[in-house]
Amino acid sequence: MKSIFKIEDKALINEILDSMEYGTLALSSDDEPYAVPINFVRIDDDIYFHGASSNRKMKIISINPKVSFSVVQSYSMIDSDFSSSDGLACPATQFFKSVSIDGVIELVGTIEGKIEMFEALMSKLQPKGGYRAFDDEGYAKVLKATTVYRLIPHNISCKYKFGQHLSQERFDMILSNLASRGTSLDNATIDMMQSQRR
Amino acid sequence: MKSIFKIEDKALINEILDSMEYGTLALSSDDEPYAVPINFVRIDDDIYFHGASSNRKMKIISINPKVSFSVVQSYSMIDSDFSSSDGLACPATQFFKSVSIDGVIELVGTIEGKIEMFEALMSKLQPKGGYRAFDDEGYAKVLKATTVYRLIPHNISCKYKFGQHLSQERFDMILSNLASRGTSLDNATIDMMQSQRR
Repeated sequence: MKSIFKIEDKALINEILDSMEYGTLALSSDDEPYAVPINFVRIDDDIYFHGASSNRKMKIISINPKVSFSVVQSYSMIDSDFSSSDGLACPATQFFKSVSIDGVIELVGTIEGKIEMFEALMSKLQPKGGYRAFDDEGYAKVLKATTVYRLIPHNISCKYKFGQHLSQERFDMILSNLASRGTSLDNATIDMMQSQRR
Repeated sequence: MKSIFKIEDKALINEILDSMEYGTLALSSDDEPYAVPINFVRIDDDIYFHGASSNRKMKIISINPKVSFSVVQSYSMIDSDFSSSDGLACPATQFFKSVSIDGVIELVGTIEGKIEMFEALMSKLQPKGGYRAFDDEGYAKVLKATTVYRLIPHNISCKYKFGQHLSQERFDMILSNLASRGTSLDNATIDMMQSQRR
């Protein structure tokens, strides 16, 4: 059985995209890849981000709008002896959720489109509010000067790795080792493991 | 003044690479980019990782060994009102450290090379030990079956964003807002800000 499970449930995919602050974009021109981390926001099925209009990212996108985007939510490191007593290092792994999106980037040209993106981005990253609405005069210059990108997904895949494939014995051994290490990440990992095993 | 500072000190760059568990690799063939997260280890100036020998990553690398690799250490979200009282959303940002590596991938063909990589990877990800040394018989099959990759960097760049460019007044405002929010990440962010401002 595979150790990594594919997740098809859109709500679970969106949960990752809406809770993680950054993802990494893979760009390429002339088969020269470029990996760049970005803060982003999901609106409906698309991913939005912004940037200054004269950097390496922007230049590559203008040549080749095809991109791949990866978002990872890391969970606990699972030590090799958490699930096995044979002394081999092989069972060592890290549990995670990840989303991988292949798609194409378009520029958002209208001020209205930019405003919609910034409203969504701020609601995500600063949910407490405390800033003026984006139709305020004070934003006019910034909105003009900022480039807003929309990533239209052609393919989205999502993976969960939480030991779903393990025997009950090894699974329970991991739960008990995580509980005794007991960091807050370990507790979150235990919750995820249990929710996937039900 | 730029809001993001370039870091040249190799010790600081290695500190990020040696403490972060995963990075994201950008690959590309026929200008079709692919972003894939990997656990990795640094040995001297190179980055090593491993994988099964028949996946998408491996296929792309065999066509085009040029890659870009990004490692991010995220720090606090800096709310827009943390450094300004004009009510605009613009100052909202996230502090971070990041390393970006462009280079070329080679396969590690020898068993000795693979053993060196796994020893380093396990020391990094499971520093407590508790597993048999990799020259043990029990690893022979796995070592043969696993593909080990070595990323030879052609260019490494490292960035710190911790408000280094801000006026003393705005810088101090952020420190005080982080201190009152007071998460453990906020405390780590305060430490980094202060170490960069000295």
